[in-house]
Amino acid sequence: MTAKSGDSCEVAFSPDGVTVTVSKGATILEACREAGIAIDAVCGGEGKCGRCRVRPDGEFIANRGDVLCEEDAEAGVVLACKATVQGDLKVEILPKSRIREHQILTRSAERAVPTLTPWLCKTLVEMPEANVYDNTADLERLLRTLGDRHLIMPVETLRRLPHIIREGDWTVTATISSLEHPPEITRLESGDRRTRMLGLAVDVGTTTIVGQLVDLLSGEVVATSSEYNRQVSKGEDVIARMMYSEEMGVEELTTLARDTVNSVISSLLRTSSERFGDEITTMDVVGASVSGNTIMTHFFVGLDTSHIRLEPYVPVAHHMPPRSGHDLGMNIHPSSRVLLFPSRAGYLGGDVVADVLASGMHTSENLTLLIDVGTNGEIVLGCSEWLVSCACSAGPAFEGGEVSCGMRAMHGAIDSIRINDDLGTSYHVLGDEKPNGICGSGLIDLIAEMYSNAIIDRKARIQELAIERIRQGEEGMEYVVEWNKRLGDGSVGDLVITDADLQNVLRTKAAIYGAATVLLKKMEEDLDDISEVVIAGGFGNHLDIDRAISIGMFPDIPRDRYRFIGNGSLGGARLALLSKDMRREMVEIFEEMTYIELSVDSDFYDEFSSSLFLPHTDIAKFPSLSVTESRGGDH
Amino acid sequence: MTAKSGDSCEVAFSPDGVTVTVSKGATILEACREAGIAIDAVCGGEGKCGRCRVRPDGEFIANRGDVLCEEDAEAGVVLACKATVQGDLKVEILPKSRIREHQILTRSAERAVPTLTPWLCKTLVEMPEANVYDNTADLERLLRTLGDRHLIMPVETLRRLPHIIREGDWTVTATISSLEHPPEITRLESGDRRTRMLGLAVDVGTTTIVGQLVDLLSGEVVATSSEYNRQVSKGEDVIARMMYSEEMGVEELTTLARDTVNSVISSLLRTSSERFGDEITTMDVVGASVSGNTIMTHFFVGLDTSHIRLEPYVPVAHHMPPRSGHDLGMNIHPSSRVLLFPSRAGYLGGDVVADVLASGMHTSENLTLLIDVGTNGEIVLGCSEWLVSCACSAGPAFEGGEVSCGMRAMHGAIDSIRINDDLGTSYHVLGDEKPNGICGSGLIDLIAEMYSNAIIDRKARIQELAIERIRQGEEGMEYVVEWNKRLGDGSVGDLVITDADLQNVLRTKAAIYGAATVLLKKMEEDLDDISEVVIAGGFGNHLDIDRAISIGMFPDIPRDRYRFIGNGSLGGARLALLSKDMRREMVEIFEEMTYIELSVDSDFYDEFSSSLFLPHTDIAKFPSLSVTESRGGDH
Repeated sequence: MTAKSGDSCEVAFSPDGVTVTVSKGATILEACREAGIAIDAVCGGEGKCGRCRVRPDGEFIANRGDVLCEEDAEAGVVLACKATVQGDLKVEILPKSRIREHQILTRSAERAVPTLTPWLCKTLVEMPEANVYDNTADLERLLRTLGDRHLIMPVETLRRLPHIIREGDWTVTATISSLEHPPEITRLESGDRRTRMLGLAVDVGTTTIVGQLVDLLSGEVVATSSEYNRQVSKGEDVIARMMYSEEMGVEELTTLARDTVNSVISSLLRTSSERFGDEITTMDVVGASVSGNTIMTHFFVGLDTSHIRLEPYVPVAHHMPPRSGHDLGMNIHPSSRVLLFPSRAGYLGGDVVADVLASGMHTSENLTLLIDVGTNGEIVLGCSEWLVSCACSAGPAFEGGEVSCGMRAMHGAIDSIRINDDLGTSYHVLGDEKPNGICGSGLIDLIAEMYSNAIIDRKARIQELAIERIRQGEEGMEYVVEWNKRLGDGSVGDLVITDADLQNVLRTKAAIYGAATVLLKKMEEDLDDISEVVIAGGFGNHLDIDRAISIGMFPDIPRDRYRFIGNGSLGGARLALLSKDMRREMVEIFEEMTYIELSVDSDFYDEFSSSLFLPHTDIAKFPSLSVTESRGGDH
Repeated sequence: MTAKSGDSCEVAFSPDGVTVTVSKGATILEACREAGIAIDAVCGGEGKCGRCRVRPDGEFIANRGDVLCEEDAEAGVVLACKATVQGDLKVEILPKSRIREHQILTRSAERAVPTLTPWLCKTLVEMPEANVYDNTADLERLLRTLGDRHLIMPVETLRRLPHIIREGDWTVTATISSLEHPPEITRLESGDRRTRMLGLAVDVGTTTIVGQLVDLLSGEVVATSSEYNRQVSKGEDVIARMMYSEEMGVEELTTLARDTVNSVISSLLRTSSERFGDEITTMDVVGASVSGNTIMTHFFVGLDTSHIRLEPYVPVAHHMPPRSGHDLGMNIHPSSRVLLFPSRAGYLGGDVVADVLASGMHTSENLTLLIDVGTNGEIVLGCSEWLVSCACSAGPAFEGGEVSCGMRAMHGAIDSIRINDDLGTSYHVLGDEKPNGICGSGLIDLIAEMYSNAIIDRKARIQELAIERIRQGEEGMEYVVEWNKRLGDGSVGDLVITDADLQNVLRTKAAIYGAATVLLKKMEEDLDDISEVVIAGGFGNHLDIDRAISIGMFPDIPRDRYRFIGNGSLGGARLALLSKDMRREMVEIFEEMTYIELSVDSDFYDEFSSSLFLPHTDIAKFPSLSVTESRGGDH
């Protein structure tokens, strides 16, 4: 029972069946957060993105704003961020507003760990019992028996040391972390407890946080779990969140990231307890490896990002100081050491270092191009001799942003699509539901199909063809992907892609291709020299490589040279947890990788501009597309 | 104004003029603590020591117990620990119950620091301003300019780094601590701030905590301050406090020690602010060096002492893990590193390691004997080649314990005394007040004078001489040191020393002499081989060496071989703060010093027993005493 005063209002959410009490004047978005309902708010609750649409019933005051269309307003839909609670209220969350169960990428084709040599080990210590002729202190007795007097024991463990030693009758199991020097005794258990040692790998993504519990004795993945990064409620992309933190302080974002990580850990512990038939607790997780982009890493540690956001894009630190699970507020063993992947630049983070590590490209004699497409595109080119990298503001088009019909790769998203001869559509929807929008891989399909069916020209402008699906909309020409009646619940109007949407997608693909071209040019390498293209990140596994090449997003080289590594950030984090060699390689990648700042690179502007065509200004760069070109024609 | 409910009682203390509100049923001792009045309670408030005598007026219930004499009871005196508040009350604190301003020992004849090389240094860092062609992170830019990329920066400083750098227009002053490896950046200031760098030396004594603020650039002591260890309220000696912590947990004692240290620090900051004419804050104190006995060090860090108290006397750790000012709850710069002196054994602590360091005995080719007399006696024998040490339970006789007329060396204590031809007394009182008791140096004087005047025999038994001052008391024979009318306020009865008191003093001096003899015997050295005797600790500077030799407490060797170093624990802590060499020597002393456990040493029992005479069973060991012997005679 929640106490309710005169100024308190009850807000009941459907279909969730959750009721919360909030103060009169609170926004419905705040009530959603209070209720633990993950709701989409790209703009951070500023009434600009129009995503947080809900249908309230009761006492409220709503500001319609600019982004809510007439149809919505008539249907009683309001923006949760712009509607304040004035009394008891029932609120229906429209399906598209909700951040729902989504597709997680964990499969990966990364390299195997050569030898299992984690920086954590368990050692049995059988000490001689103290007596009055040998009454050395407990700690020094332990270190003497271990033969290493320079080991550090955190004071929290030292406090329990006399008890642990005597409970184990002078036999203890020490978990030793050699992540830092001098090595530390992370955990101490009474008796012989060498049968189990668990570590945690985490990818702190802007959108999703994924964790894996790893058996450090066998190298096996025990459990995998993921959750939307709870920071999403403060803005969908990193820019919005940095702006939020500059105004409100970084603490809130730090807490939200850590809360998400801890929720993922809870889920991992539950799953692994079931698997082992034995309760696995936070104390059993004795080490962690965390990767993420530079901004996520800064938020996770609690550092100021304001100088990353603005030129000259300076992070606070590439390498983070040594930290323990306790320091980072992680629900693992408090003394466990946490490896944080180093970020190379403000927009080239530890996640890309992890991608490279997982791909193994830095060990190959042949030239490899690695492309990680997310909200930002990050490109690495190189081999065992050298590595160059850059980041391009690809924009969030492939993650559901800046495209009216866009959404993330979750249930209800069209992830692949074909245009039929009658210029109608056939598509696949994630979760086999009625569609609510189109995710990244679907958008690439769509634009490739629209181009090959001559619905758009080489500049991705919709042609005025005399069919019902092509029409003049409020914001210029639009193509109807699906009619309203066939869409999922809560959809308002038809599912359309507009000229403006297409230009956003065009810019995204041009940024990626342009950036890759710049790196090749700087290193004086040709496309033909590339022996492998590694695709990492968000929607890698769903992607149709042929389509991505056909719109000129990826280079036109033989398809069998393409390899997906899925979530390379998570894979790299896991590798560094399992092997000291991999951890050393991580540092080497960071040190060897040259970073090129594209924002001040004149080559990049040229290459980007040349790529603002389908597939490219210079059609000779895409020889394999000559057949499909015949239909689209040259305008 | 304090709110007062039905169950609250006001207790007004005189002559303090402090009034506090406590719950009905609280003891007067608890009310004293609430009022911040330091009151003597050797037994930890168990009604056994009879020290916490107060005179209440109002509603209270008192349990007389066994330790309160008839006279006291008639005078309305009660034990604060055994009297409960039942209503509003006025309470007079008897002077002897009060822990008052006392004599602090800080003068010392320890060696000078060879070269000023503190493990803290300040460096000016003038960085090139970041631009888009050189947008390395702030931390890495700083380290690059410093030329040491392995330096660690605590995350708390990292959080403020972007602001500090830009406020100083890319010029900062870094304070670097090389106490641990890798070195750490303790403090970062905007601009050039190389003019001042302060460190703190602390002696955490069982009775008193003394601190010194040291200018690390000049080596000068800026301020000195001390305060009774607030743990005294939980028991006067280490045994009582260990028992308290076993029952109640160590946390309370940790807090009390840290509170005392912080109060000392506040006083140091006030004094030094006045001296510099500029506000000195906790942030200005960038490093600390702390020494104390093993139990005090354990309490300060927060470790279990139960295995020190009982055989085989095992500490949790000799070397404490690296700690910061923040970790230790010290009001200094939170990132400052704190050097904690290592303890050699349960009853031979870091304070003795500091004594040795301050004495320089470990660098001498000649044989030195070091004696630290406090509640326990610690003895070290050695030279640059070797060091042996032991501890003896000397008992608290010289610190005011276990002797009815004993008190600590504070105002009102007789610190030197002569017995006149009429067997009356002449004495000096600290603070030039009327006496309330006798401190350690006064007791040594008294027993020497009583012996030379044949008031006591060689076994320290009071002779039945026909004078008024010698009489049969409740606990056997007693000698009146001063009549009641000449004593300070609050004294009840005459100031007497009893047979029982004398036996306690005899045991104390026998333990010290016996322990020193055992070390000499084990190393096959003679008294004549000793080139120097170093006296360290509590009452060193007040001591009359001749008298101490005459009762057989110190060896009978030429007086010019004696040297006082005063508070060697504080001196050693300061030396280790000022010089890396001294800090290295500290570790060497710890490693080279052999510890001998006297409690299981048969030699010790023999030597102790032989020393239970004045001056000794074997009078030949004290050749210089033959003249004074003539009067005392041999019984």
